[in-house]
Amino acid sequence: MSDDWLDRVKWDDRGLVAAVAQESETGRLLMLAWMNRDALRLTRESGHAVYWSRSRAKLWHKGESSGHRQEVKSIRLDCDGDAILLEVVQRGGIACHTGRHNCFFRKLEDDRWVEVEPVLKDPKAIYVR
Amino acid sequence: MSDDWLDRVKWDDRGLVAAVAQESETGRLLMLAWMNRDALRLTRESGHAVYWSRSRAKLWHKGESSGHRQEVKSIRLDCDGDAILLEVVQRGGIACHTGRHNCFFRKLEDDRWVEVEPVLKDPKAIYVR
Repeated sequence: MSDDWLDRVKWDDRGLVAAVAQESETGRLLMLAWMNRDALRLTRESGHAVYWSRSRAKLWHKGESSGHRQEVKSIRLDCDGDAILLEVVQRGGIACHTGRHNCFFRKLEDDRWVEVEPVLKDPKAIYVR
Repeated sequence: MSDDWLDRVKWDDRGLVAAVAQESETGRLLMLAWMNRDALRLTRESGHAVYWSRSRAKLWHKGESSGHRQEVKSIRLDCDGDAILLEVVQRGGIACHTGRHNCFFRKLEDDRWVEVEPVLKDPKAIYVR
């Protein structure tokens, strides 16, 4: 299989590209993470989101410990080639490691970040495996 | 006015944070760009999206030459503090410099990036000023 499509991505000096996951059913934004070449290839091949964890410096099969996998419906690339958009089905309805639906749960109100998304599940109950 | 809220953002080693703009009316993702501290403060103060152009190394008041400004309805920060989500009204219905509604116009189909969004306006007609 040709890797031309991977060469079209403008990887940064760390070999990464920003990837945003959007929930297909609701259109809500779930998270922003990073992918390297292997992560994007594996996402394409497996049909489930695979990211590159910068903190752990390893491939991160989203949901591998939480079960909150992301089934990928489509993969898009932006005009500059340096941002990816995944349309996904979020298993468990929880994308964030804090147990919330999505990671963008702090909203700016009067110069304060206010938490506006409820914790749907205690993280202690998510990461038991 | 306190700058505490700006200190809560985890700026990277270039002093930047990734910022995603989502269209409030449709929920569609428009673009991913970058902000430095001044860009985020100006976005907050002006109510219109201001980014940091990495290629031009200067503040980029989105729409300054195209007229395609982004009126900001809300600003969110993610769990790690290193990604911003803007909910915006996109003036002119065009976010991309190619004249398309949004920048994510290439979709992966059979290992090829296929352009799936129409050009709504010729860029030559957009950047006349």
